[in-house]
Amino acid sequence: MKRRWMRRWGVCGLALAWSLAAGCSRLGAQAPLTVASPDGRNVVTVEMLDGHLVYILHRDGRSVLLPSRLGFAFRGAPSLAEGLRITGSERSSVDETWEQPWGEVARVRDHHNELSVAVVEMSEPRRRFHVVFRAFDDGVAFRYELPEQPALASFEIQDELTEFVFADNAKAWWIPSDRPRLDRSEMLYSESPVSVLDSVQTPLTLEDRDGGHFIVIHEAHLVDYPRMFLAGQALESTKLVAALAPLAEGVKARGRTPFQTPWRTIQLADRVEDLAPSVLGLNLNPPSVLEDVGWIKPMKYVGIWWGMHIGVMTWASGPLHGATTQNTRHYIDFASQNGFGGVLVEGWNTGWDGDWIANGSVFSFTQPYPDYDLSGLAVHARERGVDLIAHNETAGGLANYEEQMEEAFALYRSLGIRAIKSGYVVDTIPGGHSHYSQEMVRHHRKVLETAARYGIMMDVHEPVHDTGERRTYPNMMTREGARGQEYNAWSGDGGNPPEHETILFFTRLLSGPMDFTPGIFDILRPDPDGRPRAADAPRVRTTVAKQLALYVVLYSPFQMAADLPENYRGHPAFQFIRDVAVDWEQTRVLRGRIGDYVVVARQERGGGDWFVGAITDEEGRAFEIPLSFLSSGEAYVAEIYADASDAHWLHNPLAMTISQERVTASTTLTLRLAPGGGQAIRIRKAS
Amino acid sequence: MKRRWMRRWGVCGLALAWSLAAGCSRLGAQAPLTVASPDGRNVVTVEMLDGHLVYILHRDGRSVLLPSRLGFAFRGAPSLAEGLRITGSERSSVDETWEQPWGEVARVRDHHNELSVAVVEMSEPRRRFHVVFRAFDDGVAFRYELPEQPALASFEIQDELTEFVFADNAKAWWIPSDRPRLDRSEMLYSESPVSVLDSVQTPLTLEDRDGGHFIVIHEAHLVDYPRMFLAGQALESTKLVAALAPLAEGVKARGRTPFQTPWRTIQLADRVEDLAPSVLGLNLNPPSVLEDVGWIKPMKYVGIWWGMHIGVMTWASGPLHGATTQNTRHYIDFASQNGFGGVLVEGWNTGWDGDWIANGSVFSFTQPYPDYDLSGLAVHARERGVDLIAHNETAGGLANYEEQMEEAFALYRSLGIRAIKSGYVVDTIPGGHSHYSQEMVRHHRKVLETAARYGIMMDVHEPVHDTGERRTYPNMMTREGARGQEYNAWSGDGGNPPEHETILFFTRLLSGPMDFTPGIFDILRPDPDGRPRAADAPRVRTTVAKQLALYVVLYSPFQMAADLPENYRGHPAFQFIRDVAVDWEQTRVLRGRIGDYVVVARQERGGGDWFVGAITDEEGRAFEIPLSFLSSGEAYVAEIYADASDAHWLHNPLAMTISQERVTASTTLTLRLAPGGGQAIRIRKAS
Repeated sequence: MKRRWMRRWGVCGLALAWSLAAGCSRLGAQAPLTVASPDGRNVVTVEMLDGHLVYILHRDGRSVLLPSRLGFAFRGAPSLAEGLRITGSERSSVDETWEQPWGEVARVRDHHNELSVAVVEMSEPRRRFHVVFRAFDDGVAFRYELPEQPALASFEIQDELTEFVFADNAKAWWIPSDRPRLDRSEMLYSESPVSVLDSVQTPLTLEDRDGGHFIVIHEAHLVDYPRMFLAGQALESTKLVAALAPLAEGVKARGRTPFQTPWRTIQLADRVEDLAPSVLGLNLNPPSVLEDVGWIKPMKYVGIWWGMHIGVMTWASGPLHGATTQNTRHYIDFASQNGFGGVLVEGWNTGWDGDWIANGSVFSFTQPYPDYDLSGLAVHARERGVDLIAHNETAGGLANYEEQMEEAFALYRSLGIRAIKSGYVVDTIPGGHSHYSQEMVRHHRKVLETAARYGIMMDVHEPVHDTGERRTYPNMMTREGARGQEYNAWSGDGGNPPEHETILFFTRLLSGPMDFTPGIFDILRPDPDGRPRAADAPRVRTTVAKQLALYVVLYSPFQMAADLPENYRGHPAFQFIRDVAVDWEQTRVLRGRIGDYVVVARQERGGGDWFVGAITDEEGRAFEIPLSFLSSGEAYVAEIYADASDAHWLHNPLAMTISQERVTASTTLTLRLAPGGGQAIRIRKAS
Repeated sequence: MKRRWMRRWGVCGLALAWSLAAGCSRLGAQAPLTVASPDGRNVVTVEMLDGHLVYILHRDGRSVLLPSRLGFAFRGAPSLAEGLRITGSERSSVDETWEQPWGEVARVRDHHNELSVAVVEMSEPRRRFHVVFRAFDDGVAFRYELPEQPALASFEIQDELTEFVFADNAKAWWIPSDRPRLDRSEMLYSESPVSVLDSVQTPLTLEDRDGGHFIVIHEAHLVDYPRMFLAGQALESTKLVAALAPLAEGVKARGRTPFQTPWRTIQLADRVEDLAPSVLGLNLNPPSVLEDVGWIKPMKYVGIWWGMHIGVMTWASGPLHGATTQNTRHYIDFASQNGFGGVLVEGWNTGWDGDWIANGSVFSFTQPYPDYDLSGLAVHARERGVDLIAHNETAGGLANYEEQMEEAFALYRSLGIRAIKSGYVVDTIPGGHSHYSQEMVRHHRKVLETAARYGIMMDVHEPVHDTGERRTYPNMMTREGARGQEYNAWSGDGGNPPEHETILFFTRLLSGPMDFTPGIFDILRPDPDGRPRAADAPRVRTTVAKQLALYVVLYSPFQMAADLPENYRGHPAFQFIRDVAVDWEQTRVLRGRIGDYVVVARQERGGGDWFVGAITDEEGRAFEIPLSFLSSGEAYVAEIYADASDAHWLHNPLAMTISQERVTASTTLTLRLAPGGGQAIRIRKAS
């Protein structure tokens, strides 16, 4: 191919980007404003370029984002994108450390410099807005603020025109968004140069071409606005543009000034291991509004759930009904005997017998099936020191849920039920709005606030993605929002491939906890009719040791032991699930490569134990892991749950070895992982 | 997420596929016909399913393709897709071995079983067609044959309705196709589950979920028909449908019966290393129509080319004009001194000074620039034992090229010029047809036939993809059709990432040779103005040793030493380029992983030397390579061009070591590759 072709026609976005980076003409430009991170490495420049407000991001003097435009298109009003002028700016700095009630780390430092840029239209109606930038050492963020003003009172946002023009045709790990009729996040990941992306979901993790830095685009503090996707432009452009989930009428957001958008976040790291734990978004959410958080407690739980997915129980009534009094007592007793904090019961409430998916109004959130003794079970659970977790499947029937919510939550509180797993199994919600629209975001916030008033913790499935709500409402515990374990029960595509969780860790999990529901031991279960499973039938595509490792790798303050109790009883590996912590003092990602492997060490909060989880894709691997994170001078015992030497996710997933070894901070352990395997280690002080 | 949701709504294609695989109702079905590969492993089943003709592919009894429909939509006539009936079948078998005049292997075995299925419409107009299936041990193929008949005389194909319904949500390596205004193949690859694919190019290489087999979808014997792309359906379906490159009016193909489509090929392998060399497509093309092929000779060449890409020469006339008599003599002398067979000269002919891209009619293919002594240089080249390679950039001006072709080729022949590098720098060709439409396919065939008449070998850039034409016309030597070296000179996205060639080997190169133009030694060249290059400026993203390894890994019968002669003179690594063969007795892929690494050994044709090329992505690697492919009992010397221990594509790309070692068939060599590195080895008999 010819150079001249490239110059004139080819990769237009790239060519443009290149020339801008090299310094193109900036007629009529105002002096640029800059704000740098405390360590000086991340620098945002804000300036006018051809009448457009743009921001530019450098790290260590090297371009990360080329001039990227900012602005809005409104319905019923002209766009606020051209003919703008910067009228002033303000600066501030923060350095404070705050404590999480629970999390991947106990304490979080918020250290940033802020630049607020005031912008006005140069002609009528001379609308005004601000863009506020915050530069942290681990990334930058910005949001729009629309002050109250006569020319911009109530508004309808048709499009947010925010751009992210990458300096590099970086490699992105992505799931698509906004496809017709499939408004979901439960998908397998792809890997592409950014120039090929169509419309994708965030967090979007990118690695630049030189392996020199990693970039994660996401958002923070989403309260009354639609979820943001990112839309690619023509092939060969490195520009992504904010694409907001629509309301039925096509408009994206309605509001009144004063108004703030969510923060658009750009996390940066030199090493992939430095991406997690990600606290940028937490720092951009307001502090907790709950005065008493003593009732909020991370926990492990079991539940009546996997049985439905593998077809041996049903949500609906009938001979296989899972949520019977007897079955639930059985789970409560099992939980109590093994130190689990909670028991989830799905299918306990009426509504499951009809055509519930297309009809979210059929569910009662207070009325149990006749074979489920709600109050008796609540008493039984309390006596055993276990919490029942109420299941609230809405099927997207927001009105039905909101109508019953106060009464239901009051009932749960009276019964001592302190946690809800909610569900939103629907693509487009009633009224024709996107599953991720402003309507849905508002609903989730309303439920969360109501739950807080009743002392209830939330675990949301089919959620809007996590944008750090848990800082403000620490009862927002965990959520789904990605392909989890249940796909291994019934997915028509055979289940999650061995690489899946190694990608999740560096993508979905950067937004917040995920209720992935690990811990399936019965990997080779026969078909429900007792016959051996077909070679290409859906199944768990890991070893048992990897199932254990997921408890450490995939962070969630509610962590399920997902298999049936009978698959745990007497299984020596179950001891690890009994022992593993769910709340962490600190977290260290020791080794990682997106799509290939992750090794994570976490220290239990309020206890000295460390836990190490290592997972790999379909390739076997060995890691030399120095235990230098342990306290020096202390003696420890490592309880090691490892793949057997002949283990293999496909052919021999159950083969594992359990051993103990005395270790200190100067020990280096060799972790050998089978293809599709993992390793889980508890490191406790030697007694 | 809920099981019931999945059953009812989710992954509809998958769910359907699943139920079909499990044996859905087949009302009114005729008895299925099957054809198996000679080894019995690959079995195609053909049957009627709900009035549709479908084929099914199994390997070792396991589904590869679920029932996939066949048929056509016509313009001006009803579709030929429903209400069909199988009226008969014929079988035949072939087992023959044929010799290539040149190639990756000297001899190719064509061993297959054929099943021809006769199909008729059950109602008027009772059109008839055949689908011919061939089952080989390395894959299966089929094509449509439309016999001459009153109800189907001349026709316009609106769409070919061929489906490929994968049994598995396999992982695919892909480049997109048919984007607005970018009808190109020069792109970086992505990796996705097949359920996410939009429209993609072939060869499409897929790996199933269990790593149990690899599948490559492509086509063979494309003569008078558009190129085939593959279009994904709704998200979560594993079905891909043939998508033909359109003529301007939207219709895809025009023809008259009797008519045959190209073969649709499905290559299968258990190990990724078994995918190459790929001969399935060659076996599906007719034998050579050229009686004398003695004039067709693989060669290495140098040329006036890279200088334009890095901006130190121009195609156009002026002070930097590259194609001057003096400069060309310099290249001819360099070629002669170093054993190169050819010298490519771009920019020798008039037409480059105007706005040539939008205007393919400006080029003369006979008229040299005044500073280029065409006939004198031809004499000089002949005296030095070197062939000039004529450059014919058409800019898509097909008519202009076809008008001048006879005269030009006659001139070249008279001057002893026996090779042409042609170019088609344009997206949509004049008239508004796709770059890959039937018009373009016809043009390429016309040029190839004409070239054969004049004893001229072809190297086509911006081509239609290779479908095995070289078997029938062995003067069809090599072509571009992927992102090659020149992107490292000027690409706005920085150049090809280190993984690029490890993907090319298992995708683009499976279709046929590629004129990638390896051999850039001056990796750290300064900017044209002499300043050091910016950190994110385009550059070669390999070590020098990897540049050498590409001569072995990326097969082409014309292999360029792409750098400027001054960068080769006195460079010790240049000896490898002088030594490396370009025609092969046999080829063995020793190690491979798509996107990660490839190690290939090839034995020189007509000589006993072996060459080994090993390349890696951005990760350093070590390989233990037993030399068991050598003749036992013979003593050899391995000349090893390796990355230095501190080499690194980004920081230290030039560091290499050259060493010799005495080896035998029982030697195991350890190949250590730097990040972004490679290793090239010549193994010659010890003298």
